[in-house]
Amino acid sequence: MSEIAVTDRTQHRRMRENGSTRKEDLDAVLAAGFVCHLGVIVDGVPMVVPTCYGATADTLYFHGSVASRSLRQDPDAEVCVTVTHVDGLSLARSVFEHGINYRCAMIYGTPRLLEDEEKLDGLRVLTEQCAPGQWDYARQPNRKELAATALLALDLTEASVKIAAGPPEDGDSPDAELGLWAGNVPLRPVFGAPVPAPDLAAGIALPPHIAALQTR
Amino acid sequence: MSEIAVTDRTQHRRMRENGSTRKEDLDAVLAAGFVCHLGVIVDGVPMVVPTCYGATADTLYFHGSVASRSLRQDPDAEVCVTVTHVDGLSLARSVFEHGINYRCAMIYGTPRLLEDEEKLDGLRVLTEQCAPGQWDYARQPNRKELAATALLALDLTEASVKIAAGPPEDGDSPDAELGLWAGNVPLRPVFGAPVPAPDLAAGIALPPHIAALQTR
Repeated sequence: MSEIAVTDRTQHRRMRENGSTRKEDLDAVLAAGFVCHLGVIVDGVPMVVPTCYGATADTLYFHGSVASRSLRQDPDAEVCVTVTHVDGLSLARSVFEHGINYRCAMIYGTPRLLEDEEKLDGLRVLTEQCAPGQWDYARQPNRKELAATALLALDLTEASVKIAAGPPEDGDSPDAELGLWAGNVPLRPVFGAPVPAPDLAAGIALPPHIAALQTR
Repeated sequence: MSEIAVTDRTQHRRMRENGSTRKEDLDAVLAAGFVCHLGVIVDGVPMVVPTCYGATADTLYFHGSVASRSLRQDPDAEVCVTVTHVDGLSLARSVFEHGINYRCAMIYGTPRLLEDEEKLDGLRVLTEQCAPGQWDYARQPNRKELAATALLALDLTEASVKIAAGPPEDGDSPDAELGLWAGNVPLRPVFGAPVPAPDLAAGIALPPHIAALQTR
């Protein structure tokens, strides 16, 4: 089992019981989604934008016109990319003990703007993370489209993982005498039935890899 | 129909067709969730953390130990709070035309650290946004708990909204001849069946407002 190196800013300060330095936890959090929140500094102010990503064992690939603008201003600028899954509500007897169950990964670093082969590889990773099977099914980017796409890579070397799970914990407090219900309400993203484009020609069947999203 | 004032940084630069300045769109995006991503600057580097929020017509309330730390360093520090809903995949004939359907609100400003009555009001708004009905059902915070809670407020004066919806748009391109399936796969968060805490005393019924989450 490998560990993520801890740096000053990835040191867990609050809710330390939720912090993890296990690489497999980082990989699992990244594998479970495809939209991250990218933080950059623009004119001295933080800016947080959602963007699409894909991850391998050592690299996070993400789309980023905002990040590439920030990189052009300062090629050494560091960013923070955060991936969060909201897993449900933890409803205690007291409001104070309420919480959200979640899994979250934060990655820090200076992203690289990709070109050529590496850009194509990254786009494949990103596309496959959003819709597995789609890279080989759809028409892949040509040279012109590739040039018009901004893709960035961030090494997965400096990262922080937090996982909050489990039931509320005020069952052994005086609040348990209140006779109130306490427990979890799980939450998860669910894909619905695919909706064909209105202009889709008749007779084109839904491919199995897209149908399979609903059972993910 | 009211409009959100446009400032230099909320001016939509990319994908302008997706930008909205309608206050009702901002309100709808904020009402549809309860977890935001807060961006602050710590030691010159952006930091993006997920946190719980609640919104009224003019104020966003959010939990924030990170933000309060940043505010103690610099009471005038501006933050960016982003709320994103991922509504699905837009799968085109070509990878280049692929996209994510989403609704996103970004709010800029200098948050205020709340005290006393205003803090209690804000906590009520936030709790009710996560689990409507829970504020009156659970035991509300006492003085000591309130003091131990960091709650911040951000005015909804400087905000930017983006909404991407609809089918892929390459049906009139040469790619339509490829005979590939194209369309949307919707995605939405779904609450599951409530799970009672393992130490919940027998005979405590699930209250209707929690059961109702599943149909939300």
